[in-house]
This record gives sequence, structure tokens and C-alpha cells, in this order.
Amino acid sequence: MNHPEPIQRLIDELCKLPAIGPRSAQRIAYYLIKSDERLSKNLAQAILDLKEKITTCEQCFAISDSKLCQICSDQTRDQSLLCVVEEYRDLLAIEKTHEFKGLYHVLGGYLNPMEAIGPENLKIPQLLNRISRSGITEVILCTSPSVNGEATAIYLANALKDTQIKITRLAYGIPVGAEIDSTDEQTIASALTGRRLFQV
Amino acid sequence: MNHPEPIQRLIDELCKLPAIGPRSAQRIAYYLIKSDERLSKNLAQAILDLKEKITTCEQCFAISDSKLCQICSDQTRDQSLLCVVEEYRDLLAIEKTHEFKGLYHVLGGYLNPMEAIGPENLKIPQLLNRISRSGITEVILCTSPSVNGEATAIYLANALKDTQIKITRLAYGIPVGAEIDSTDEQTIASALTGRRLFQV
Repeated sequence: MNHPEPIQRLIDELCKLPAIGPRSAQRIAYYLIKSDERLSKNLAQAILDLKEKITTCEQCFAISDSKLCQICSDQTRDQSLLCVVEEYRDLLAIEKTHEFKGLYHVLGGYLNPMEAIGPENLKIPQLLNRISRSGITEVILCTSPSVNGEATAIYLANALKDTQIKITRLAYGIPVGAEIDSTDEQTIASALTGRRLFQV
Repeated sequence: MNHPEPIQRLIDELCKLPAIGPRSAQRIAYYLIKSDERLSKNLAQAILDLKEKITTCEQCFAISDSKLCQICSDQTRDQSLLCVVEEYRDLLAIEKTHEFKGLYHVLGGYLNPMEAIGPENLKIPQLLNRISRSGITEVILCTSPSVNGEATAIYLANALKDTQIKITRLAYGIPVGAEIDSTDEQTIASALTGRRLFQV
């Protein structure tokens, strides 16, 4: 027996989302049928509002519901420190640590010659322009420790090397709590290269 | 840092659904932001259509998008055999076996004196009425093997005992593939009570 058409259609749409398989989609559909109509209406409205009201910050290109995002508008943050990330989700991950009090710049990806993604396809021209006309004194390159992320960091470091700006990169090493023998070789190699004086 | 309001609102709405936690909700929200607008529009429309177009079959009370559901409208099904289930999801589970070719009646729950749910709160009057004016010769009581499900089955068996209709109940026993020593005592007891001649 097939599901009635409106149910099957919702299941199909839900299955296009991440983290939802056919069984979860079916559970959600029947849950909505049994629930108060307000739940469906509010959910549908929230989905539509999302696309309508969300934009990107005109300064840092983070996802935002206003021209300047919360972080760029926050004058208590350190305006001299800039963290460059590939994606907005990297920004969220860093914010969760509560360790960083500077500003961000979201590139929107990484350089990828194989897919013809060059600096002009990312927010790199905007980054260089932003740095040139602001009081930024340190740029932390937080691109991912992959080949392309590393290439992007190297490109940016080269582009900024003639300025007085301090260029730093996230430390890569053994994750806190991980066991050394279950850590991959490249991470161990990075951890060795980046070893620090141990002071007791 | 908080999510922008439209994102947080969607996350909150998604978290009201079964099988979606805060992390999945966040992933879905950011996926929708990155995706084509059509995905959001189709999803929102499918949610709204569901509540608008889905109703219950006027004969068997299964979830349906027409007055008579697919099964009730299917004249090739055995019109003399009626399977009584608590919920529509039980009907779906039985249909998946492809073993049953009769009709259904969805009660909408079970008798529960603790919560003051009596026969008139379920589709029991409609069931007795339906049976009295149709050519049904066997009623299979497929309520769940719980105290309340059993009480509901006994109530229905009593209500029908003065008719010529054959009343049967699903067999309860060891699930196929399960190990006896990891099966609960009540199931083993049911399997012993319901033991059958083993013919080779």
C-alpha cells in the first residue's frame, strides 16, 4: 500500500534534508497529521521566513538577519583581531569555545584549482580590501587543515606578507582526549612540527 | 553567540518534531539557507497541504486523502474479513507483510478507564454498526498485547459474541529470529499458551 499522495510528497521533501531518512520522515508526517494545525503552520512559516529574512553580513559575510551581523555590530569585540574561516559553521564552532573575542571573515569556501575556484570566487578581494582600510593588526588563518585549506592559507599569507599585519594559523595537533595510537599520521606529524616548550 | 532570530525560530519548531534534536535542526536550517529556494517552498507547501488534504476514511477511519481510503475502495480485497487495529500505523505495519487481503477498522486508540476513554471515545460504535450491516464473517482483533489492548479485544469479543461472526486474535509468541533466553517471560507464556501442533 502506498501512502496517500500528500503524505508521500511530504516524505519525499523531508528526505531531501540532511539527517532525515525515510523512517524519520514518515514519523514526522504522521506526527504532523495528529498534531494541532498551529504546529504545521508555524513550521511552514519558519521555513519560508528563513529564506526571506536571512542574508549575509556585508562586512564579514557571515549569515545574518541584518546588514551587519551581531559580531560586526558588537563594539566590545577586539576590532584589531580578524579570524578568517571557510564557512559560517566554522565561525559557530569557534564562537562556542568563548575563547575568541575578535572579528571574523567568512570566505565561503576554499581555493580549489580542480573546480576552477579562484580568489575571485571567494570573499578574498573583499578580505584584502577590508584589511587595507581597517585597524586590523593580526589575521588568524582558520582554514581547514586539508590540502585546499592549507593552499588557501598560503595564498592569503602571501597576499598579506608586505603589510605590517601579523599572520597566524590555528595550531594543529592531537585532539584533546584522543589517544596517540588512534590518531592519524598526518595529525601526529603536525603535532610534532608544532611542538611547544613544556614548562612546569 | 545566538543564532539569528529566523534561524533560531526554525530550529525551535523543528525540535518539536519527533526524531529531530537540536543538532539535526541546526544542520537542516543551514542546509535550507544554502539550498535553492524551491526546496524551502516545496517543503513548506507540502507541510501545509498535508493538514489541508488529509482526512480519515469515512468507513474504516484510516488516514486518507479521499472519503473512502485506497483499501476500502479496492473491490479486489476480501470484503468478508475485517482486521481491527488501534492506530493507522498498525495498519501500515500489517500491510507491509502483504499477508492480509481483507479490510481494516482503525479504532483510534484503546479502552483506558484510567483516562476515561470508553467505547464511545473510540470508533467502536461505528465498528459495531459497520459489522451489523455488512457481509463480514470474520473479525481479527489486532489490538496490541498490552493490558489495555487486551481489554479492548475482550470488550469487542463480548460485544460480538451473539453474532455468527468468527472472532480471532493475532497470535502472540516468540518473534521470528529472536532467542528464547532473551525473550521476556510474558511473551514466552503467551507462546506456550498459543502453542500449535508441529506437523512434519
